[in-house]
Amino acid sequence: MDLRLQPRTAAGKRFVELADTHAAAAAVRSAEHDRVGTFPFEAFEAMKQSGFMTATVPEQFGGLGLNSTHDLTAGLCRLAGGDGSIAIAANMHLVFPLIMRWLQRFSKEGGDADMAEQLDGLLAVLGGGTIAMGNNTEPGTDLAHPLLEATKADGGWTLNGRKIFGTLSPIADLFLVSCRTARDDGTYASGNAFVFRGSEGQEIRDNWDALGMRASGSNDVVYKDCFVPESLFFTQGDDWGTDGPLTQVIITAGNIGLLGAFCGIAEAAREQVVEMVKTRTKAPSDRPIAERHGIQHLVAEIDVDLATIRALLERTSTVIDEVVRDGPTTEATLDLLHEVNHQCQCAKLVANRKAIDSVARALTLSGGFGYMTASPLGRLYRDVRAGPLMQPYSPNEAHEFIGRISLGLDPELS
Amino acid sequence: MDLRLQPRTAAGKRFVELADTHAAAAAVRSAEHDRVGTFPFEAFEAMKQSGFMTATVPEQFGGLGLNSTHDLTAGLCRLAGGDGSIAIAANMHLVFPLIMRWLQRFSKEGGDADMAEQLDGLLAVLGGGTIAMGNNTEPGTDLAHPLLEATKADGGWTLNGRKIFGTLSPIADLFLVSCRTARDDGTYASGNAFVFRGSEGQEIRDNWDALGMRASGSNDVVYKDCFVPESLFFTQGDDWGTDGPLTQVIITAGNIGLLGAFCGIAEAAREQVVEMVKTRTKAPSDRPIAERHGIQHLVAEIDVDLATIRALLERTSTVIDEVVRDGPTTEATLDLLHEVNHQCQCAKLVANRKAIDSVARALTLSGGFGYMTASPLGRLYRDVRAGPLMQPYSPNEAHEFIGRISLGLDPELS
Amino acid sequence: MDLRLQPRTAAGKRFVELADTHAAAAAVRSAEHDRVGTFPFEAFEAMKQSGFMTATVPEQFGGLGLNSTHDLTAGLCRLAGGDGSIAIAANMHLVFPLIMRWLQRFSKEGGDADMAEQLDGLLAVLGGGTIAMGNNTEPGTDLAHPLLEATKADGGWTLNGRKIFGTLSPIADLFLVSCRTARDDGTYASGNAFVFRGSEGQEIRDNWDALGMRASGSNDVVYKDCFVPESLFFTQGDDWGTDGPLTQVIITAGNIGLLGAFCGIAEAAREQVVEMVKTRTKAPSDRPIAERHGIQHLVAEIDVDLATIRALLERTSTVIDEVVRDGPTTEATLDLLHEVNHQCQCAKLVANRKAIDSVARALTLSGGFGYMTASPLGRLYRDVRAGPLMQPYSPNEAHEFIGRISLGLDPELS
Amino acid sequence: MDLRLQPRTAAGKRFVELADTHAAAAAVRSAEHDRVGTFPFEAFEAMKQSGFMTATVPEQFGGLGLNSTHDLTAGLCRLAGGDGSIAIAANMHLVFPLIMRWLQRFSKEGGDADMAEQLDGLLAVLGGGTIAMGNNTEPGTDLAHPLLEATKADGGWTLNGRKIFGTLSPIADLFLVSCRTARDDGTYASGNAFVFRGSEGQEIRDNWDALGMRASGSNDVVYKDCFVPESLFFTQGDDWGTDGPLTQVIITAGNIGLLGAFCGIAEAAREQVVEMVKTRTKAPSDRPIAERHGIQHLVAEIDVDLATIRALLERTSTVIDEVVRDGPTTEATLDLLHEVNHQCQCAKLVANRKAIDSVARALTLSGGFGYMTASPLGRLYRDVRAGPLMQPYSPNEAHEFIGRISLGLDPELS
Repeated sequence: MDLRLQPRTAAGKRFVELADTHAAAAAVRSAEHDRVGTFPFEAFEAMKQSGFMTATVPEQFGGLGLNSTHDLTAGLCRLAGGDGSIAIAANMHLVFPLIMRWLQRFSKEGGDADMAEQLDGLLAVLGGGTIAMGNNTEPGTDLAHPLLEATKADGGWTLNGRKIFGTLSPIADLFLVSCRTARDDGTYASGNAFVFRGSEGQEIRDNWDALGMRASGSNDVVYKDCFVPESLFFTQGDDWGTDGPLTQVIITAGNIGLLGAFCGIAEAAREQVVEMVKTRTKAPSDRPIAERHGIQHLVAEIDVDLATIRALLERTSTVIDEVVRDGPTTEATLDLLHEVNHQCQCAKLVANRKAIDSVARALTLSGGFGYMTASPLGRLYRDVRAGPLMQPYSPNEAHEFIGRISLGLDPELS
Repeated sequence: MDLRLQPRTAAGKRFVELADTHAAAAAVRSAEHDRVGTFPFEAFEAMKQSGFMTATVPEQFGGLGLNSTHDLTAGLCRLAGGDGSIAIAANMHLVFPLIMRWLQRFSKEGGDADMAEQLDGLLAVLGGGTIAMGNNTEPGTDLAHPLLEATKADGGWTLNGRKIFGTLSPIADLFLVSCRTARDDGTYASGNAFVFRGSEGQEIRDNWDALGMRASGSNDVVYKDCFVPESLFFTQGDDWGTDGPLTQVIITAGNIGLLGAFCGIAEAAREQVVEMVKTRTKAPSDRPIAERHGIQHLVAEIDVDLATIRALLERTSTVIDEVVRDGPTTEATLDLLHEVNHQCQCAKLVANRKAIDSVARALTLSGGFGYMTASPLGRLYRDVRAGPLMQPYSPNEAHEFIGRISLGLDPELS
Repeated sequence: MDLRLQPRTAAGKRFVELADTHAAAAAVRSAEHDRVGTFPFEAFEAMKQSGFMTATVPEQFGGLGLNSTHDLTAGLCRLAGGDGSIAIAANMHLVFPLIMRWLQRFSKEGGDADMAEQLDGLLAVLGGGTIAMGNNTEPGTDLAHPLLEATKADGGWTLNGRKIFGTLSPIADLFLVSCRTARDDGTYASGNAFVFRGSEGQEIRDNWDALGMRASGSNDVVYKDCFVPESLFFTQGDDWGTDGPLTQVIITAGNIGLLGAFCGIAEAAREQVVEMVKTRTKAPSDRPIAERHGIQHLVAEIDVDLATIRALLERTSTVIDEVVRDGPTTEATLDLLHEVNHQCQCAKLVANRKAIDSVARALTLSGGFGYMTASPLGRLYRDVRAGPLMQPYSPNEAHEFIGRISLGLDPELS
Repeated sequence: MDLRLQPRTAAGKRFVELADTHAAAAAVRSAEHDRVGTFPFEAFEAMKQSGFMTATVPEQFGGLGLNSTHDLTAGLCRLAGGDGSIAIAANMHLVFPLIMRWLQRFSKEGGDADMAEQLDGLLAVLGGGTIAMGNNTEPGTDLAHPLLEATKADGGWTLNGRKIFGTLSPIADLFLVSCRTARDDGTYASGNAFVFRGSEGQEIRDNWDALGMRASGSNDVVYKDCFVPESLFFTQGDDWGTDGPLTQVIITAGNIGLLGAFCGIAEAAREQVVEMVKTRTKAPSDRPIAERHGIQHLVAEIDVDLATIRALLERTSTVIDEVVRDGPTTEATLDLLHEVNHQCQCAKLVANRKAIDSVARALTLSGGFGYMTASPLGRLYRDVRAGPLMQPYSPNEAHEFIGRISLGLDPELS
């Protein structure tokens, strides 16, 4: 009985099969990429070739038509079993068309035919193989308050600022860059710019060097007088930091696949260590240590945690699909989407914590062997630790968001 | 957005509606029954009248046709919001027809037409309003090893022994009594006897007096030379303590609804305290304490735990339904059912723990007020504590069962 | 090897011996007092007779001269092993002379001879057998902001307001009542009034009825136009809510003995259940369940927690003694006392949580038997739950206080 | 108020001062040694020069005369604040003379003058600057059952086998190698051999490459036909795996200093992150993030854990000192020493877990910055994870040992 997340749609089944294949291939080089800190270009090349990277693009634009965060999560879980870095980098792109599709649905039903058409154009581009990423994180601020500034220029805008944690940047073709623009009254409006790789003034550094997720290419991207034509700049004139339905959709969509990745890392650690304790023996009895009660107890704790993670991912992704993909768009109010995000943040808090706990227990179960560099467990232990750092929200902030929604208060953090 | 478990079938919807109604009615007297330790006869009378108590009997025998542990769990969750004792007592009976139906399905597909027919007869009896219970627990042993002895008598068997924790005994009409019979070689075989209320030699005590679940009527039932005719005695000649698919089905079915009850208690505590902190103010600011960060943090922790419990119940009950109700009976091997039980025990361990934690946090959030007898929180705190004590398995044993299954070992405990 | 807290002083040794004796005597009636909710007058009579209740009064005034929070805590730990309610009620009084002595020391070294002399008078009164209590808690506010008002009257003050959780009130002779007095500018000053039992306008209700600590007599005390002569009213003109060294001393002194009581409850639960699992057997093996690994695991978890509680109590009480009793009074700044309280609140948070966890595990280990009213474990489970509710701080607020001190911020809560 | 462990003896004060100095010096190169995996020869050279490495040798043999596990732990805590690898490697040697002294005390009082004299000789050697280590761990067995075999040879013994986790091996002069010798009846006796560095047949590999503690030089040491003269071989003819007082003394002494090291790592992480959150600001408010409640909550959790670790280390080291250094040797029975070890294992379980939790929270508090290789937090996170892997006991086995002692059973693990 396979209690991992199982795909529910035909596209999902295909996606998960591909994920299994790519995971197996990636696993061969994951130790090397981790050690040296290189980006797995070859893995992404294969994922582009197989159609995996266009999975979430509608079929008419050349994709697999995957349109379910549940199935997306199921697949990323498998992929992360091979290499966690690759899974979080792939998610960065895969969730992009999904959000476009949902946005398009809301546009159509809201009567904004132009927007819906524009999004068709973008989906066609993505279906053609373009790799996209959201280039959002900056030091000294949160996601809602980008400091990178766009200033009006002739025929467009000029960007200045620095983004960090630019996962997937080594191969991304299209960067969606969040920014702010100053108004005359000293306040700011929010905006987003599409920047194509190679644009003058965009410098994609090669400086990602971290404790884990070392193959994710999460480099700094610096924008210095980087020009963006008007047609690639979007602002709805919202105040800098304004919360809205779209923000909530992006947060939930962006997080759920990541949770799948961390689940997959925990599952991989569990598999390795269960195999190990079944075969390793210990003097004086020289019986397999799996027969020892302390070992059984710890394995049970891992499996209790995995059951918890999986249940939360299954239910949360189903909720997202039901509300955002299937629900009446007229009912998708900010309040409702806050509740979806509330569920998502509960899942994130637990899944990240339990995934870390599971890998930690696997390390304990391994005796000292998992602590050696030669064992893959150390990498899993370092990779899985990235989960709680991902925004929004880290455990620094999650309780405040969750609690405020629970209590019917405005979730803006203090 | 209502994130409580939602019924999926028509019968389930009706069942949950009835549960809501009965919960509201029961809530009025729950404090009184708790204080005095009386059994809520009036609540059960109402539940019999409304058809709630025959919900899991097939429609052709007069029931609602509810045939989903998921929907059963959803309803018991609601009922427990009114009174936890009533919910666990109702589960004792409601799960009975469900198990009969599944057993019947296996009989039919296994070609045992006689058994299938017998079960039809039993379901008709239950459809007619008979209240049944499993009378299993005894001191000094586990469920697999009943000490109550059945000895061959003229035309039947004589029972001697004592059962404890006989939940629902004040109104049960039919007791399914687990027992053992001595063989000539000094070993024992397992057996089960149906005993109708009022049979000579059966003494249903009125001695249930516990920390919580005080309205559940979990009395001792003593059997002293209690005669059971051959037609009401069942044995397959299995060795005393033999594990088998039916045992595993009973364990999972018997537990999942109980978990719903404990979930419902936690949800009730959460509702009360959230309402309280939204309205209570505190000097010197005299602002609602819901605005305080410590309060928000604790409420968030409750909601994180509730999200966890619900996700585990949803997934686990779905797995039970898929395997036991819908799966190919030929594939329902002992190994597969061990895996289902593994999932169920993971859910039990977490759900019980988290339900207790949630009520405990609600108590903390209430300041000292929830500690006063006048508040219902104290009852919820005492009731919810029963969860981990319920067999199988308590936390004394659960890790060993889970771990051994995880490791592919025989789950018989040391 | 007895790893419970061991007294370090001669007075402490005597105190602990007496505590052991009184605990044994109290244990006989603890179930009865708990059931009926009566105050154990006989136990307090015996404790007065033996000198236990004057233990913290200096020897020259007739006491044992106990002057160590460490030894006080050690003794209350033992007493609570017999009856937790009695221990927390006794602490209410026992800590009183201790604080007077420390205050006197600060007065003397600060050159306030009058105050030092006054305190001598008070200590003499306490040495004569007067039972004192702090009557502080009120609904809708925190300890620093009493709502009970003192208004100027001829020759003194008139008190109006209601105190709750008045532990020990059934036998207290002297109530130290925190209050506020209105100033002309609409602000308030803090004050304290000594009220002797039987003063007109003081009504000591008999309304304590709670989940646990049912024998602690924590009644409401209502003050209605209760006159207090000028000589028994103290105010230093501090603003209502002002924090200061004395407040911090009172908080730490008041809490540490309570922690001892909760430790003692946990130790009692542990003793009972260890005895039980060593002797109880279970079929089919009929071996003592102590030989089962799940049982060993849970017992280990209890002992790990008890080791943690004891270590924290030992270190924290030592710190209090070193700073408040032995340290240079000139160095006992508010900042330093905040740090002492920081340590105390860390200990409180962990000790309360771990004491609750330990009793909960004892309940689990007992199988269902500890859940029966006939078992003392249920009482221990209800009593120990009072710990986190006690102010300051409950877990609603503790993290904010601790975190702010850790970060060098003003600890005033938001 | 400095709540870190404070030395109690004059030698301890000197030791802690030296530890502070060496920690500061080591911190400069800790990142480099961690990255490359090199052994910090220069740090140990300095520690030899300063007298730090001979601290536990009696003064008459040229040491500082440090004879307190409490003060040893206090010092290792400080040293680990600079470099955890150095602290655990130093402990390996520092605990050696301490155990010799205790053993000598038992010998004298037990009347074994020869042994006492021999130990004097050994202490003199150590006082002269010889660096010693216990070379015990092997794969596939526990510490009590060495597989390395000693076979009788002309004038001595020949060793064959492989030791792992040989911390400090790059500079150790003297290896105490645990082994077994075959008896004629097919059973084994335990033995210990002293092997001087450079002995023929001893190969000290340079293969330590692990997740953390990368500068500890925990290499394999292979013994191939390594001859040991009779005078350097010790066996008391005990059966292989026999438990005894000396074993228990070695376990507690060997563990307590290590716990100090892990405490020091957690303290270092705490210092860094508290400094960071006090100074880092975040848009849009641009106020220090220390003012955020989520940050305060997490910092509080760290400080609660540090308070717990310190209290347990203080109490446990005091117990060891009182029993092993100060207690009547006639009373130091195996039972008593099991109880001391029970306390030690409780402390180990909690301290390791809480130290890891604290560093993990520091990482969370740092936002993503602590995850970057440029930050020292990643190293602390990897180093601190070694704690639970250290024997005996890891969490795989600790509960069984603790629980069995708690229940009065023989602690031999199943």
